[in-house]
Amino acid sequence: MSESTTIRPLRAAEVSTWDQQADVVIAGYGIAGVCAAIEAARAGADVLILERTGGWGGAASMAGGFIYLGGGTPLQQALGFEDTPENMETFMLAAFGPGVDKAKIADYSRGSVEHYNWLVDCGVPFREAFWGEPGWEPPHDEGLMYSGGENSAPFNTLAVPAPRGHVPQMANKRTGAKGGGYMLMKPLVETAESLGVRVEYDIRIGRLVVDDDRVVGLTARRYGKEIAIRADRGVVLATGSFAYQKEMIEGYAPRLIGRPAAAIEEHDGIGIRLAHALGAQLAHMDATEVAFMADPQLMARGIVVNGRGQRYITEDTYPGRIGQATLIQQDNQSYLVIDEQSYEKALTTETATPFFRQPPTWVAETSAELEAEMGLPTRALQSTIEVYNLHAEQGRDPLLGKKPEWLRPLRGPLAAFDMRGFTAGFTLGGLRTDLDSRVLHVSGEPIAGLYAAGRCTSGLCAGGYASGASLGDGSFYGRRAGLAVAASSPSADRSSIQTHVRN
Amino acid sequence: MSESTTIRPLRAAEVSTWDQQADVVIAGYGIAGVCAAIEAARAGADVLILERTGGWGGAASMAGGFIYLGGGTPLQQALGFEDTPENMETFMLAAFGPGVDKAKIADYSRGSVEHYNWLVDCGVPFREAFWGEPGWEPPHDEGLMYSGGENSAPFNTLAVPAPRGHVPQMANKRTGAKGGGYMLMKPLVETAESLGVRVEYDIRIGRLVVDDDRVVGLTARRYGKEIAIRADRGVVLATGSFAYQKEMIEGYAPRLIGRPAAAIEEHDGIGIRLAHALGAQLAHMDATEVAFMADPQLMARGIVVNGRGQRYITEDTYPGRIGQATLIQQDNQSYLVIDEQSYEKALTTETATPFFRQPPTWVAETSAELEAEMGLPTRALQSTIEVYNLHAEQGRDPLLGKKPEWLRPLRGPLAAFDMRGFTAGFTLGGLRTDLDSRVLHVSGEPIAGLYAAGRCTSGLCAGGYASGASLGDGSFYGRRAGLAVAASSPSADRSSIQTHVRN
Repeated sequence: MSESTTIRPLRAAEVSTWDQQADVVIAGYGIAGVCAAIEAARAGADVLILERTGGWGGAASMAGGFIYLGGGTPLQQALGFEDTPENMETFMLAAFGPGVDKAKIADYSRGSVEHYNWLVDCGVPFREAFWGEPGWEPPHDEGLMYSGGENSAPFNTLAVPAPRGHVPQMANKRTGAKGGGYMLMKPLVETAESLGVRVEYDIRIGRLVVDDDRVVGLTARRYGKEIAIRADRGVVLATGSFAYQKEMIEGYAPRLIGRPAAAIEEHDGIGIRLAHALGAQLAHMDATEVAFMADPQLMARGIVVNGRGQRYITEDTYPGRIGQATLIQQDNQSYLVIDEQSYEKALTTETATPFFRQPPTWVAETSAELEAEMGLPTRALQSTIEVYNLHAEQGRDPLLGKKPEWLRPLRGPLAAFDMRGFTAGFTLGGLRTDLDSRVLHVSGEPIAGLYAAGRCTSGLCAGGYASGASLGDGSFYGRRAGLAVAASSPSADRSSIQTHVRN
Repeated sequence: MSESTTIRPLRAAEVSTWDQQADVVIAGYGIAGVCAAIEAARAGADVLILERTGGWGGAASMAGGFIYLGGGTPLQQALGFEDTPENMETFMLAAFGPGVDKAKIADYSRGSVEHYNWLVDCGVPFREAFWGEPGWEPPHDEGLMYSGGENSAPFNTLAVPAPRGHVPQMANKRTGAKGGGYMLMKPLVETAESLGVRVEYDIRIGRLVVDDDRVVGLTARRYGKEIAIRADRGVVLATGSFAYQKEMIEGYAPRLIGRPAAAIEEHDGIGIRLAHALGAQLAHMDATEVAFMADPQLMARGIVVNGRGQRYITEDTYPGRIGQATLIQQDNQSYLVIDEQSYEKALTTETATPFFRQPPTWVAETSAELEAEMGLPTRALQSTIEVYNLHAEQGRDPLLGKKPEWLRPLRGPLAAFDMRGFTAGFTLGGLRTDLDSRVLHVSGEPIAGLYAAGRCTSGLCAGGYASGASLGDGSFYGRRAGLAVAASSPSADRSSIQTHVRN
């Protein structure tokens, strides 16, 4: 076959030789890929995973490992938290929009307990311990934590707060040995391989191969050679986000230009682009997760203000919401202001992100002096602090709804941190899939033979985000992809394809 | 041919009879379509326009009629405004992003004077008069106005302010007879028809017809009958935005759910979807123009605050920027606050939008009383007014850069207008096209035989907007589409197509 860098589909009639063949071919060996592989193999399919790098894991194995689960999981119950699928759905509808896929959120909420049990059955360990302090992650190996602002304004008045960030137990987090994402992936990979799933590493997918309108395989490059791989039942795309594809970031999510994070360089949008070339529907291509590089223990005790010295979000919420609000709504202009007493208190707490505990940029005896040092307009910050203090004295935050436990007037020596531009993130938009992870054509019908899951799809999050939504979505709909592709009819009788399969 | 509602492309081999034929087939008879038709016809092509409604005009003929032009147009020069292509480009790069198509903005700025002259040569009338007051449009038939915040912060410090909103002279605006958009379209339509351009009304496009990877025609429905129309040189999509396509709004631009404006119901994204089904690249699908239903004369004299009583944008800027900031960055929560003296002064001015001059929602003697009546947290609005007044007394607005001419402390009886949810708009995202208006495939190469212009493309505006950018972009790149399609090679020798053309 001639070499090519195009991503246009290749017609099956142009494939002279199929170098490999499987019932199900999965592109990408991260969380979505491994879950698809397990379910497809259990359903009796012969599964081949193609992985671009030299090892399994994808972005998942680098991640902190939150999986967003709820509705009353055994872990939630054991730790005394009440939750129902309906309550989970109510929160997700409010927090993950606007424009969420309502059917997917309903489906996910209802399937969440079963999915938790499935993960446990595959060997994913969760320790029965809850971490209730502000933070990006638990500092140890606690298995449950609030990870989406469920217990903060405005969501704590819309749904009953329940923590849903489930974290696989880490081997030894303090030594940095293996994080939660690794501890999620490892048992899943072992499960897949025990089922006979085949894996090819160091292989890069090229083009989808189509027979009429059905996807019947793909081309790939391995050690510089282009090969064709036939997928009798279908192809599953599990190739991750487009955080590292410059043209797509510029064209769809330009606020992330130059600031990718929590993604891997292999996240070049290839799965999205290959399916798009077939007319696959897309959704929410502008949506992004946004990390904010501040210590949540400091933020909860202080105030976060924008470039005009105004508060704009409750400081005790999920820090990813602060990141989104900062990047998207405040032009990435942000400062954290705290007084000495609260600063010192915060420093006594444990944190999973000690590298965010930097010295303050400015310190001053009074808010007037601090304001002047920061270069803010006269009275801009002072009046913000006065209004905050006026209400904090009464244990209230009518502006933003911060919880009383974090409300204390800012007094005496003050410190401020320059947080301008301290955001980074990954993309949440991608292929529109149905509840069976079938890739939908822009016309609304599924594209035969093509499935997708994980961050190459537009999943649960249309705009908002919670930590764990990506691993949750990817694992849940990865499974659906595996089940659906294994159950599908094989593509046209092979004798009609005028080629032979070598292996 | 069988009936079908799919939007998947149809293979030419499946077309048994071509009911009509032209060198160039243009879908949509709005601003982009008419300009494409003129240029293609002048280049010698036989042109057929297909229009879904019973008449020409599209959204353009309903519009106020701003065309965004500059770089030193004769009208700018006659009215004493200096501008250069480079200065125009600098403004557009700053105001229309993030993520703008830099090549398109450079191209457009450099071609803008020629484009003005071309419009005038086609008979579009511009009156040599400038309207310099805040407003959505000139109240009479003035030909030039600031329409994008060029003379407001932050742009007035980044580029030399120059008005670029060029408005065709209206027949009699006061009687509501014919607006600027109509006066733009009418001479262009007359020009097109004088060149022998053929038009079919009441015909709705169905599917694109492809021969190999080239677009060679389309199907359409006319009076319930599906017909096939061959386009020997190419098809131009000029079908407008997707403001009225519910699924696309939910999937790409959900903040506009339930609030389409300045679009027509025919703006159902059909051109985008047909090309997308062929793998056409998209861009900035989340971008939206946003109208804010307030009187700019009132806003410039007052303060605009969000749901927390905080100012968030300079009130003397282009009101569409206030709309975008309100909908996207302030969750559609906004109030306008003004004092009695400024309110009465504003009411003495002329306005093109008298229907936005509604009575205030609240009036009060003091800011404390007003704040309480509005239900804002104690001291939230009062402190905003105090900070504003403190600086306004010195003729400065260090928070947001409002110009001194509009700065006066708010004193005495105050009024406030409830502007929550008072936004509406249309979509700016769409097909990615090159400078010749060729529709690009997701792989980056042009799709042979397919061109697009106007609001079905992602044009000059990736995020920001100026009034006139749509008619400017649509007319400019409509022309480019017409030139390029007329100059292209005819599709494969007709004898190779096993069909005949009826007409």
